[in-house]
Formats: sequence, structure tokens, C-alpha cells
Amino acid sequence: MDTEHASPFRSAQPGFRWDGVAHMPYKQDGSAPFKDISRQVLFDDPALACQLRYFEMDAGGHSTLERHEHAHAVMILRGHGHCLVDGEVRAVGPQDLISIPAWAWHQFRATRGESFGFLCMVNHLRDKPQIPTEEELAALRAHPAIRAFLNDTPLD
Amino acid sequence: MDTEHASPFRSAQPGFRWDGVAHMPYKQDGSAPFKDISRQVLFDDPALACQLRYFEMDAGGHSTLERHEHAHAVMILRGHGHCLVDGEVRAVGPQDLISIPAWAWHQFRATRGESFGFLCMVNHLRDKPQIPTEEELAALRAHPAIRAFLNDTPLD
Repeated sequence: MDTEHASPFRSAQPGFRWDGVAHMPYKQDGSAPFKDISRQVLFDDPALACQLRYFEMDAGGHSTLERHEHAHAVMILRGHGHCLVDGEVRAVGPQDLISIPAWAWHQFRATRGESFGFLCMVNHLRDKPQIPTEEELAALRAHPAIRAFLNDTPLD
Repeated sequence: MDTEHASPFRSAQPGFRWDGVAHMPYKQDGSAPFKDISRQVLFDDPALACQLRYFEMDAGGHSTLERHEHAHAVMILRGHGHCLVDGEVRAVGPQDLISIPAWAWHQFRATRGESFGFLCMVNHLRDKPQIPTEEELAALRAHPAIRAFLNDTPLD
């Protein structure tokens, strides 16, 4: 831990940044499809079995469409957008809660012309995400609501 | 899990309430000193090793002054107030981050005449909090900043 992290207090800064928290790429470039999204790890204390991260997309950005064994617990913190979980697409906004269970396909998309950010709690120990095969993607796109979501033209 | 929790989506409602989340007393009455504070457990999924809770004090309210082996990771969500961690008192507000390490005395106080609420991430498995003995409380009150905080007249 660096000196800044040694204080119990880290202040919020304008624009959803924090003292002592690095503003990082979402993932290694090229490791999976995503767009205009950043990652900040807010809490990564070995004494806690989970991490708390903040992800933010610019308008039009999106996270990777993926699934994995580990679960996510999400609270929207900034702006409005859409979220896919396990076949269901929903418009979401500040403080809405989203539970992503094991093996559910999920994605966040900044569909409302504004920055869209969320807190995500996750186990420190977790498996690697899978991205859909062409067949799995075709099966998802067969649902009109999911197809519209993936085309950034959600139905609601 | 009840039917409402079975959906991945739970919407935020006005006043820092959520669909399908019970608004509960902070602790069992009489178990420890506290004032005008409520508890909502936002995520309590056995697949996640941590819980995420939202605690809120009315103006003038406070959490229990306590310590324990388990750590807390806190983000202020609503309003302004003061927080004591391990000998340090700080004015805090929306999105400020607070790390509460093992065995640090800590307390939150709604000192700014407004509701004051925070998210708290904690391990699902954890030890029981201790409250200070008279001697420990006297030692804390010997620090001017902590005495002022405990009297709801913080120095800043």
C-alpha cells in the first residue's frame, strides 16, 4: 500500500474520481470487445473477501458481453443506461441495484447520451469471464429486446 | 429468496429506499448505544463473500462507537457528517471513501443537520463488535478533536 492508501480517508474528486485511486483501462486492450469504459478499484483490502470497483462508460460506450461463474452485485452511481442480465434488458439509473448470478450473460451500455457508471462488488477470488461464441451471440440476437440493446437502440 | 429478489433488477425509490429491500432497525434495541439510524441490506448473496449494506442517520443521529477484528469499506452516499476512525476525525460527504481496519474505534455522526447515509461492504463471516470500557472512552475523550466529535460539536 502506498502512503495515500495508508490514511483511512480518501476524498471524492469532481467527475467520479477519488484521491489515491488509479483511473485505469477497463481491461487489457484486445482481450475482449468493449468500448469507452474505465475502471477504478475503490477497495482492494486483503482483509475483505470482496473488491469494490467503479466502472464508467462514456456516452455510447459499453462493457464486454460476458459470463462467468462468479456473481456481481451492482449499484448504478452515475447517469442512465441499459443493462442486460440473463435474457432481460432494463433501463437503469442512479442507485438501481442489479444482481448478476453465476453464468448469466450480462452487459452494460451507455445508451442515453451521457456518462454511465456503476459500483461493482465481486469476490477477490474469481474465474475468468467467457465471451459468447458466434452461435451463442446469434441465439441472444434472436430476442428482439436483446438485438435492439446490442444495436444501441433499446426498445424502451 | 422471495419473488422480488428473484429478479436481477431492484429499482431505487425516492428517499434512499429500494424495491425488495427491508428498512430495518440498525441493531437490536439496547444491544449498544446508537441514535436515529436505520439499516438496509442491499446485497446478501451466498455466492458473494461480502454483504453490501446502506446505513442512514437522521440529522443528529449516530452509529455505535465500536471496534472489531473485521474490516469495513465505506462510501458515503447521502449528505454530510463526520467520521471517527482510529483516532482521526474527518468531515465527509458524498462519495468519499473510508477504510476501517481491524480493531480501529470508529463511529459515524450526522453532524450537519441533514440525513447522512453510507454504503458499507463487510465480510459475510465476521466477529461481534466491542464497545469501549469507561477507561477506553476516557482515553478517546482526552483527544480534543474526538471529544468535540462525541459532543456533536466537531472542530471543523
